[in-house]
Amino acid sequence: MTYQEMTREQLKKELKSLKNEYAAKKALGLSLDMSRGKPSAEQLDLSMGMLDVLSSSDNLVTRSGIDVRNYGQLAGIPEARALFADLMGIEPDEVFICGNSSLNMMYDTVSRGMVFGFPGGEKPWGKQKRLKFLCPAPGYDRHFAICEVFGIQMIPVPMTPEGPDMTLVESWVNNDETVKGIWCVPQYSNPEGITYSDETVRRFAKLKPAAGDFRIFWDNAYCVHHLTSEPAHLLNLMEECRKEGSEDMVIMFVSTSKISFSGAGVAAIGCSRTNMKALERVIAMQVISFDKMNQLRHVRFFKDIEGVKAHMEKHRALLQPRFEGVTNRLEQELGGQGIAQWTHPKGGYFISVDTMPGCAKRVVSLCAGAGVKLTDAGATFPYGRDPQDRNIRIAPSYPTLDELLQATGIFCLCVRLAAVEKLIETVRE
Amino acid sequence: MTYQEMTREQLKKELKSLKNEYAAKKALGLSLDMSRGKPSAEQLDLSMGMLDVLSSSDNLVTRSGIDVRNYGQLAGIPEARALFADLMGIEPDEVFICGNSSLNMMYDTVSRGMVFGFPGGEKPWGKQKRLKFLCPAPGYDRHFAICEVFGIQMIPVPMTPEGPDMTLVESWVNNDETVKGIWCVPQYSNPEGITYSDETVRRFAKLKPAAGDFRIFWDNAYCVHHLTSEPAHLLNLMEECRKEGSEDMVIMFVSTSKISFSGAGVAAIGCSRTNMKALERVIAMQVISFDKMNQLRHVRFFKDIEGVKAHMEKHRALLQPRFEGVTNRLEQELGGQGIAQWTHPKGGYFISVDTMPGCAKRVVSLCAGAGVKLTDAGATFPYGRDPQDRNIRIAPSYPTLDELLQATGIFCLCVRLAAVEKLIETVRE
Repeated sequence: MTYQEMTREQLKKELKSLKNEYAAKKALGLSLDMSRGKPSAEQLDLSMGMLDVLSSSDNLVTRSGIDVRNYGQLAGIPEARALFADLMGIEPDEVFICGNSSLNMMYDTVSRGMVFGFPGGEKPWGKQKRLKFLCPAPGYDRHFAICEVFGIQMIPVPMTPEGPDMTLVESWVNNDETVKGIWCVPQYSNPEGITYSDETVRRFAKLKPAAGDFRIFWDNAYCVHHLTSEPAHLLNLMEECRKEGSEDMVIMFVSTSKISFSGAGVAAIGCSRTNMKALERVIAMQVISFDKMNQLRHVRFFKDIEGVKAHMEKHRALLQPRFEGVTNRLEQELGGQGIAQWTHPKGGYFISVDTMPGCAKRVVSLCAGAGVKLTDAGATFPYGRDPQDRNIRIAPSYPTLDELLQATGIFCLCVRLAAVEKLIETVRE
Repeated sequence: MTYQEMTREQLKKELKSLKNEYAAKKALGLSLDMSRGKPSAEQLDLSMGMLDVLSSSDNLVTRSGIDVRNYGQLAGIPEARALFADLMGIEPDEVFICGNSSLNMMYDTVSRGMVFGFPGGEKPWGKQKRLKFLCPAPGYDRHFAICEVFGIQMIPVPMTPEGPDMTLVESWVNNDETVKGIWCVPQYSNPEGITYSDETVRRFAKLKPAAGDFRIFWDNAYCVHHLTSEPAHLLNLMEECRKEGSEDMVIMFVSTSKISFSGAGVAAIGCSRTNMKALERVIAMQVISFDKMNQLRHVRFFKDIEGVKAHMEKHRALLQPRFEGVTNRLEQELGGQGIAQWTHPKGGYFISVDTMPGCAKRVVSLCAGAGVKLTDAGATFPYGRDPQDRNIRIAPSYPTLDELLQATGIFCLCVRLAAVEKLIETVRE
């Protein structure tokens, strides 16, 4: 019998039993964390060899003749630009290698939009009256935080299994010149693991923005982060844009934060030559040069895109059992009860769970009470407002498999408890 | 006989001879660069040991229990904060360790001022009508570029042998609430090598700004960069401010760009706990964490402030002969002729030369013609406008001693040539 089929009396009985179970879990005094997409120590161990590729006896001048220890080469060493070009499916001179964080690059890109504007715009964003960004939701909380900081109005766009609702995207972008950007995680989206369909990517390339300074923020954070042996296929947006002559509309972001080291990786921007020129001019006022030594470290360790792919297989071997552990446990404990749905991602860092409407906040709070930390409910929506209060993002990468199963068990208990509480409210005597 | 004493006829003869000499130099087709404060390869070699302190067999968890390979610890690892605290003469919890570039931190600090404002201010700088920065001049061109980018009006303040003209500084800061900042390189200033006197530092601490969000940008780029065995003494501004209760007024910047690697050092901000809290809140929206692995590398290599000092002695051994070579050559070729003056810095990266008024642009252009690259004339003043067109910054660190002497020889020739041209204009028939 599912909860939905129960009488009020039966629900009350179930509630009592779940509360007892919850009290017992709480008494264990656990401290488990499924809140952030953070690699485990075992994953970080995979890149330790990178610490040996540059030593005091090595030559630190690149094949291209650059002493990576000194100032210069603002856009990065050619070898690193070539590697990131392959990762992004673009040309090396369309790549700008920056510091260690793609989030920082995205923040800086919006910030530069405010101060300097973009080619095609009449004046800096900051001098324009209204600014809007489209925010496919659920999405990445830190993207939304950047918009909030700069006072950019966020317009939520529903996600479909093919990517954002493109009819809505087209209608906004092509008609409203105050729409300046859209946040996209096109492969293994955060949190749902959706990869944009070919049709979706083509429709992005064919956009005819009302604003000349509209930009697609293409955050390809999980471009090589597969969880199965059949990688999702993502059409190359830049190539599609070239066919349409719309390549100035795209700014791509990638980083090795979840390839090498989360604290000490390398991040890059990919964009058209027109955007690149503007970027070089303004970044030159911001910094003398980025850390080219770390760029060289990455190039010497991975060698090429094939090296990166082989490396990501090792990550997969560590991550896949964790994801499977969580989804199996969800199936065992919540399957067929009509009180939750969840994703089975083929890549990326998250499992997205939809509880019954109006239950997500309660579940997160109950979990916290029992020592299981989750991302705040609502965080996956602009302004932290999940209109149905039902989406919860689970990050399975960091805990050990044991901890993860324990945490997922508690999570399932809390989902059931919240569902029963909610049903009691609505079911008649 | 000095040029000033010559008749027009004698000057014309001298001009002809100098022009012949110049043509001969030009024919050599040299390519020498004294334009930027860039360490030499030998200096960079001094830090190569840093590449061996972290290897794949090392434990990358700090004494404080932090895995430097992963996200977290936004303000830096405690060990690095302690080392930088000693460099700045402040407490570890007043230190925020950032990326690899203090210039980037300064840009970001101004940018954050525009977007978020500072404690003590009523609203963000960007929402206020007029903004001014005081710019002791000659000064650092990249400081001035940041003001220009953000549309902040620059007010030049003359430098004295004791630091900026403090009477003028007090008059502006204490009376004009649109004055939001001042750029300072307090030790071995760029380009003159002036270290602020105790009296100057005390007067800074005693400022009573009309604007609650006024900040002193204390860019202590050369805090351990001595060129003599008698380091200049700089009073500790933060300590002086504590006596006055004015410590929220100060933001300090340092980096290891000219201690370890110029492309791959570590930069830090020093500020009061009130400023630190505000900083942590806003940087959290900008980045997940900075490169803690490089922080650990620096800590393990230098160990402590004494390690840094001993290391800087090695830099001095390489730099001091270069500075001496330049000043000796200047003395030999231009001494006692009344057509140029120059500094004898006790530290830092530059020698500042004042030509006869109206000659600097011409000298830089003549040098370029003969294959010697110098910083643009005027660059050391706000808006690139040297009111007397006479200041030229020489950076002796990067070329070899031979190249440097050759370049200085050509520079002296050009100074003489420009002086004679100028004198011919003004001397009667």
